[in-house]
Amino acid sequence: MSIYDDFEKTSANHVALSPLSFIKRTALMFPDRDAVIYGDRCYSWSQLYGRAKQLASALNAHGIVKGDTVAILSANTPEMVEAHFGIPMSGAVLNTINTRLDSDTIGYILDHGEAKVFIVDGELAPQAAVAVAERNILIIDIADLQDNLKPNRIGTIDYADFISKGNVNADWDMPADEWDAIALNYTSGSTGRPKGVVYHHRGAYLMSMGVIADWGLPRHPKYLYTVPMFHCNGWCHGWTMAALAGTIICTRTVSPSVVYNAIYDHGVTHFGGAPIVLGMILNAHDNDRKPFDYTVNVMTAGAPPPAAVLEGIEKLGFDVTQVYGLTETYGHTVMSTWNSDWDNLPQDERAIMKSRQGAGMVHTDGLRVVDINGADVPADGKTFGEILIRGNTVMKGYLKNPQATSEAFADGWFRSEDLAVMHANGYVEIKDRLKDIIISGGENISSVEVEGILHRHPSIALAAVVAMRDEKWGEVPCAFVELKDGASATEIEVINFCREHLAGFKRPKKVVFGDLPKTATGKIQKYELRGRI
Amino acid sequence: MSIYDDFEKTSANHVALSPLSFIKRTALMFPDRDAVIYGDRCYSWSQLYGRAKQLASALNAHGIVKGDTVAILSANTPEMVEAHFGIPMSGAVLNTINTRLDSDTIGYILDHGEAKVFIVDGELAPQAAVAVAERNILIIDIADLQDNLKPNRIGTIDYADFISKGNVNADWDMPADEWDAIALNYTSGSTGRPKGVVYHHRGAYLMSMGVIADWGLPRHPKYLYTVPMFHCNGWCHGWTMAALAGTIICTRTVSPSVVYNAIYDHGVTHFGGAPIVLGMILNAHDNDRKPFDYTVNVMTAGAPPPAAVLEGIEKLGFDVTQVYGLTETYGHTVMSTWNSDWDNLPQDERAIMKSRQGAGMVHTDGLRVVDINGADVPADGKTFGEILIRGNTVMKGYLKNPQATSEAFADGWFRSEDLAVMHANGYVEIKDRLKDIIISGGENISSVEVEGILHRHPSIALAAVVAMRDEKWGEVPCAFVELKDGASATEIEVINFCREHLAGFKRPKKVVFGDLPKTATGKIQKYELRGRI
Repeated sequence: MSIYDDFEKTSANHVALSPLSFIKRTALMFPDRDAVIYGDRCYSWSQLYGRAKQLASALNAHGIVKGDTVAILSANTPEMVEAHFGIPMSGAVLNTINTRLDSDTIGYILDHGEAKVFIVDGELAPQAAVAVAERNILIIDIADLQDNLKPNRIGTIDYADFISKGNVNADWDMPADEWDAIALNYTSGSTGRPKGVVYHHRGAYLMSMGVIADWGLPRHPKYLYTVPMFHCNGWCHGWTMAALAGTIICTRTVSPSVVYNAIYDHGVTHFGGAPIVLGMILNAHDNDRKPFDYTVNVMTAGAPPPAAVLEGIEKLGFDVTQVYGLTETYGHTVMSTWNSDWDNLPQDERAIMKSRQGAGMVHTDGLRVVDINGADVPADGKTFGEILIRGNTVMKGYLKNPQATSEAFADGWFRSEDLAVMHANGYVEIKDRLKDIIISGGENISSVEVEGILHRHPSIALAAVVAMRDEKWGEVPCAFVELKDGASATEIEVINFCREHLAGFKRPKKVVFGDLPKTATGKIQKYELRGRI
Repeated sequence: MSIYDDFEKTSANHVALSPLSFIKRTALMFPDRDAVIYGDRCYSWSQLYGRAKQLASALNAHGIVKGDTVAILSANTPEMVEAHFGIPMSGAVLNTINTRLDSDTIGYILDHGEAKVFIVDGELAPQAAVAVAERNILIIDIADLQDNLKPNRIGTIDYADFISKGNVNADWDMPADEWDAIALNYTSGSTGRPKGVVYHHRGAYLMSMGVIADWGLPRHPKYLYTVPMFHCNGWCHGWTMAALAGTIICTRTVSPSVVYNAIYDHGVTHFGGAPIVLGMILNAHDNDRKPFDYTVNVMTAGAPPPAAVLEGIEKLGFDVTQVYGLTETYGHTVMSTWNSDWDNLPQDERAIMKSRQGAGMVHTDGLRVVDINGADVPADGKTFGEILIRGNTVMKGYLKNPQATSEAFADGWFRSEDLAVMHANGYVEIKDRLKDIIISGGENISSVEVEGILHRHPSIALAAVVAMRDEKWGEVPCAFVELKDGASATEIEVINFCREHLAGFKRPKKVVFGDLPKTATGKIQKYELRGRI
C-alpha cells in the first residue's frame, strides 16, 4: 500500500476512450466545415453528426441494443462513413463486409456474426440477395442516386426513409467501457472460412491518435477514401478525420483519374492505397493526369511496394509512407517513419530505406522478430524470424473462436505469421508470409525478393512468385507476371534478367504471363496462383 | 450477455498507457537525435534514455519502490528533464516543487508528500537547506557546472556520482496499471496550504497525444522550455517531445534575449509561456532581437492575454495559441483553436477570437459553463457561470485529502472555480476566478474586463484589478498598475481612460502605481494585492 492507492475512478476523471468523442466535439467546434463529399453530395460535420444520430436512434427504435451486430455491405459512400459513427452510437457493433465476397461467404459472415440488421448498397444488392435468402434479418437498401444506380431493393426498407425517422438530436451514450466492441472485421480467409476480428473503442481511439502523431496529420486534412472502408474500417481513417475535422472525399472506384480529379477539385492532401494503386498512378495515361503544386501524402500497405514504384511516384509529387499491419491490428501498427539522417543518402539507398516496413507506431507497445524458439533474432537485417506485436491496437480476439484467439496470442504476443528481418533502430523488413517462403534445396527463398527483381524489369507491370514442386529441389520459384500495356517479354528473357540480379537458386524456373488475381484490397491472391501450377 | 463479452485482456492486446513508452521507442528509432540542449551540454535520445535508466536503477538501489515519492527542486535543466522519465521508471512518483516557494512551504510539501529522496539544484540549495533541516530524507545535490554555480551541497550525495552508479542498460517496468500515479504537483496555495494534485500515467499519455493533435505538432519540434517544469510538469511537454523525438532546449531564465537566441542558435519552433512572457518579447529592446524567417509557435496560458499583446506579437512572427487549464487538469485542457472561417475577419475581431480560451481539447471529454444550480448557461457569450471539466486528464484527486477531492468532483464533474461565458461552437471565455469577481451595488464586475481596458492604455505595461471595500457599493474596483519604462500616467487620467471604454460603475475608484507581485509562473498574486488595500 502506498499513499497513492487511495483514489477512486469517477466520471469526472475517467472517461472511456472512444472515437465517437471525436465527432461530437468536431460537430460542436466546426459545424459548418465539410465532413463528407461524394460527387454532388456534401455534408458538413454537424449534418454528418445529425445523420449518425438519426441512424443510431432509428436502429434503437428497431430494437437494436448494446452488443448486437449491424452489418453493412457498401462502397465508400457517405452512408458507409456515417455507419462508422451511427452504428456504434446505437450501442451495436459495426460489421463491414468485403464487397468482393461471394454470396456464400457473405451468408456465412451474417450467420457467424449474428447480424440483426444488414444495410446493403444498391450496387451490391445482387450478391447480397442470394446471401440473405432464407435468413431472418432486417434489410435496409441504400439507393445511391448519385451514381444513378438502379435502386436494387432486396428488402422492404429504404435507407433514406429509415434514417429520416430517426432523431437528429437524439441522445446517445458513450460506451460504458472502452474495452467494449466497436467493430467486427472478417479476415480475408485465404484458407478456410474467414475469422471474425473484434475491435474495441479504446483501440480505435488510440489508433486514430497514433496516426495523427506518426503521419504528422495537420488539422483539416482533405482525405480521399481510396482504401475500402470494409478493410480494417478503412485503416480507421474515418475516425481519424473526425478527430481533425478533416474532409473525407468518397469514391466508388479507384483509378488514376479519380485520384488526380480529387486532387484538382478538392485539394486532396492525403490518401491511402495498396502498392497496386501507386503503380496505377505511376503508369497513368498523360490525359488522366492533372497538375498540382503541393505534396500529396500517400500511405501504402498490403504488400511491400517495389523500390522502382516508390522512386517513380515520389518524382510526381507524392510522398509515400509505407505501413504494415493486419486485420488483427486495426490495420497499420508499423510505419516506415522517415529519419532525416537518411536525407543525404543516394536516391537508391533512400528507396531501400523507404521500402522497409518500419518501426512500431506510437500506439504499438512492442514489435519483435523471433526465431522458431521465440528468441529475438539479431537486429542485423539478415536473420529471418516471425514478427510479433503487442499493444492496445491488437484485436480483442476472434469472435466465437477462443482456440484461434489463444493460438494467436501465444506467450503474450500476437503472432503475425509474417517473416521479417530486424534492422537497427527497430525497423522490420518483411520477407514473406510464413507460408509464402520457398524452400529450395534446404535454402530459404523469399518470394518478395524475387518479385522485387521482377518489378525492375522494364516490361513487367506486376509480378508474383510462388513455390512450385520440384523433384530435385523440393520447391522452386514460379513467377506469374502481368506485362505493361504494349510491352513484351519472353520466359527465357525474364529468367535471365533474374539471373543477373539474384543468386542462381533464387531465379524462377518457370514464368507464366497473364492477369494476376487480386483481392478487394489489391493483394495478389497467391493461393489462387498456387492452384494454377 | 452478448457474443462480444467473452474476451480476456491479455498482455498482447492490453498495455498500460504511459508516456514512458515514448522515450523507449524514440531512443530506439532516433538514438542519435538531440534530445536535450543546455548551453554546451547536449544529450541524444539514447543518452537521455540511458541517463534516465541510470537514475531509475540508482533510486531502486537506494530502496525506492513503487508508490514512493521522489521530490526535485530544480530549474529547467537536463536533470529536471531526465527526472520526468527516470523517477517514474523507478516506480516512484515525481514531485516537482515550485522553485519560488519559501522554505517553510517546501518543508510542508516534503512532509505531506512523504518524499524519501529530494534532488536539489545547486542554485536553490539555500532555500532547500532550511526546509530539510531536521527531516529524514536522502538529499542529492546537483552541481550545475554549466552556469558555474557554486556546488551548494546540502547533502552528502552528488547527483552525477549518484547516477553514475546506476545501470545505463537497466531493465525497468512499465506501470502495471495506467491508473498508477506518475506525478505529484502542489497547487499554488493562494489560500491556505497547497494541495497535492496526483496525476496518473494514463492522463500524461493522453495529454501528450492530445497536444500533438490539437497544437498540430510535427515530428522533431525544437522546443524551448520556458514554462517551469515544476508547473504541471511543464504542461507535460517534456513527455510530448519524447513522443515526437523533438529537441528540448533548457534554460534557467526567461528573457527576450533567451528566446531570440534560442531561435537563432537552435531553430526553436515552439515554446510556451505566461502572457507576461509575450509582453516581454513584445516590449524587448531592439538589440535583444534577432531575425527569423519562419513562424514560431507559442502556447500561452495562466491569464487571458490582452488583445493588444496578442496582436503585437503576431506581427513579429509568433503564432500564439491560448490555452486554459489548471494544475488539476495536467495544465491545458481547453484550447483557443483557430477556425479558418475567421481568417477574413478584421484584425481586431480576429484578436477577440484569439483572446477567448477556447473549446475542450481532444483529450477533454466535457466542458460546461453552469449557473449556481448546476444548469448549463445559454451559449450566448454573455451569461456568467462556472466552468466544469470532465476527462482523462483530470487529476486522480488531492493527496490525503478525500474531502477536498470529493468537493472538487461534485456531481461527476471537476469544478474549476473559474467564471466564464459560453460562446457558440463550445468556446469558453473566462471572466474571472470565482473569488476575483467584484460585486458592486449588486452588479458583477469582471476584474479581467477592467484589466483588458487598462492594458490598452499606452503607458501601462501590466495591470491587475481587485475588489476594494466600499461603504456605499459594497465593493468597487481598485487597479494596480506597472508603467512601461519611461512612461508616466496619473490616477485621474487612468480612471478617465477607463470611463471612456467601460460602463461607469466598472471603472476603478483607486489606482496604485508600482511593481506587481507575481508567482513563479507569471501569474499576478491578487491575494497579495488585496492585502495592500
